[in-house]
Amino acid sequence: MKTALDCIPCLIRQSLKVARLATADEKVQEAILRETLKHASGLDLARPPLLGQWIYRQVREHTGQTDPYLTVKRESNRLALALYPGWKQRILASEKPLASAVRLAIAANIIDFGINGDLKPEDIPSALEESFAARLEGDVSEFLDAATRAKDILYLADNAGELVFDRLFIELLARKNITVAVKGGPAINDALLADAEAAGLPGLTEVIDNGTDGAGTLLDTCSAEFQERFARADLVVAKGQANFETLDECGREIFFLLKIKCPLVGRHIGHEVGSLVVKRNISVAQAIPHAVRGCLAGVDVFTK
Amino acid sequence: MKTALDCIPCLIRQSLKVARLATADEKVQEAILRETLKHASGLDLARPPLLGQWIYRQVREHTGQTDPYLTVKRESNRLALALYPGWKQRILASEKPLASAVRLAIAANIIDFGINGDLKPEDIPSALEESFAARLEGDVSEFLDAATRAKDILYLADNAGELVFDRLFIELLARKNITVAVKGGPAINDALLADAEAAGLPGLTEVIDNGTDGAGTLLDTCSAEFQERFARADLVVAKGQANFETLDECGREIFFLLKIKCPLVGRHIGHEVGSLVVKRNISVAQAIPHAVRGCLAGVDVFTK
Repeated sequence: MKTALDCIPCLIRQSLKVARLATADEKVQEAILRETLKHASGLDLARPPLLGQWIYRQVREHTGQTDPYLTVKRESNRLALALYPGWKQRILASEKPLASAVRLAIAANIIDFGINGDLKPEDIPSALEESFAARLEGDVSEFLDAATRAKDILYLADNAGELVFDRLFIELLARKNITVAVKGGPAINDALLADAEAAGLPGLTEVIDNGTDGAGTLLDTCSAEFQERFARADLVVAKGQANFETLDECGREIFFLLKIKCPLVGRHIGHEVGSLVVKRNISVAQAIPHAVRGCLAGVDVFTK
Repeated sequence: MKTALDCIPCLIRQSLKVARLATADEKVQEAILRETLKHASGLDLARPPLLGQWIYRQVREHTGQTDPYLTVKRESNRLALALYPGWKQRILASEKPLASAVRLAIAANIIDFGINGDLKPEDIPSALEESFAARLEGDVSEFLDAATRAKDILYLADNAGELVFDRLFIELLARKNITVAVKGGPAINDALLADAEAAGLPGLTEVIDNGTDGAGTLLDTCSAEFQERFARADLVVAKGQANFETLDECGREIFFLLKIKCPLVGRHIGHEVGSLVVKRNISVAQAIPHAVRGCLAGVDVFTK
């Protein structure tokens, strides 16, 4: 998905938010904001998630705070784990447990402290309840058919806490060939290895990290191991808007599971803000041969 | 009111909005956004309305569009004039017509296309109805006492359309010594002389412009005539947030009439977003001698 100019003011706002999380010193907050404005003015607007990645690195440099959302993430894990047994019971009692688990995993994508400026960890129980009741767009059966058939699934996680509900889906899917990938370094409240551990994923699936620290999946900044894994998987599932923004045109088939939280992504996908979405970008048949490799080599063979 | 860092992302967003109003050319929109980011990175953050002024000038330079909100303002005048007879009847039938007219004049401050990103002219009737019902904070009687006693009132207008409802208050106040000041050049949808004429003000009061084109009242950029008028008035009434932001610390007594549309202004004044507010900054007795003159000379004698 091509960045829109609208992403810029939103990212500037987020830079101020993360600066304030990282330091109470207003002079440092101002310095971070100024640097962000300057950097954004010369940015390649075709790749806005790069600005997000840059902002968090910048905040780390200015404040020494390596992970401003650490407390938020721990609290999200704690709350999600407390909610887990009740939700599990409810999902298992539903008419189609696996489809309900997919709905819940998408609904849990609301646990996002980047774009949801006002969300607080204590809001998670009610936000999840509300999100679960939202309209679901897309073909869950098609996704479940593909997931059941796939020999080798790569599941790209999004946020800490959300991962607890991804786990419930993965448990019910009961496949042995799933690898869950988290971020290699802090990016907003995106899940890291520690959050996958908190969610109880190791033991249930293989867990890897992508070797980098940006939101979404900026393929060419990921580790060689991750790139290889991504190219090899016969099914890629990607959670959240940032993964959609960074991967929908990468030329290979991906199933995106996301909650729409921004009107631009909504317009691009064709659904309203608040919707839960299952979206396959292209089919295997439509995939561009070697597109992912081309992408990794920086060859622009597949962007629209 | 000292600018907060939070004003910056909001102004960046507004620059994109006005760029899009002024041109459909995405390359020009992007150029305007880049220039704004660059300029903002070096800005004196103590005076954010200067960025607003700069943004609109910048858009004019890039697009040749001198007044991007012209259509919006004309439509606002048309709708406000259509609503005027009904509201007049309602105000006159109320228990305290003059106090009700003050409430309506403040409520009409909702007709603001800068900060209300999603407002459309066709929403004005319902937005005004809703705004009129909002909580009113401050002492209307104190303001009306002062307005009734004053020998020479300067009334600083805010938006086109809103001015029609200022007129209703001014009619009911029935004083001969009122001067209404509009902006000297385009600033968002702020009223210009043409809008004062559309509202039927000339004939009822003297109408002047402030000789400049920024939102609010950036005293030192106003014309010498306006500055003299401002210093001489024995009562200044100032409509809207931008006037509050630019004038509340100017050292002279001012009655601010505004609808709170931003959480920062709300926190500063101590009332919630959505409230209608009558707020006197300081009394005549507290005024700093020659403060306004000091301000005009760029002497920082009165900022907190």
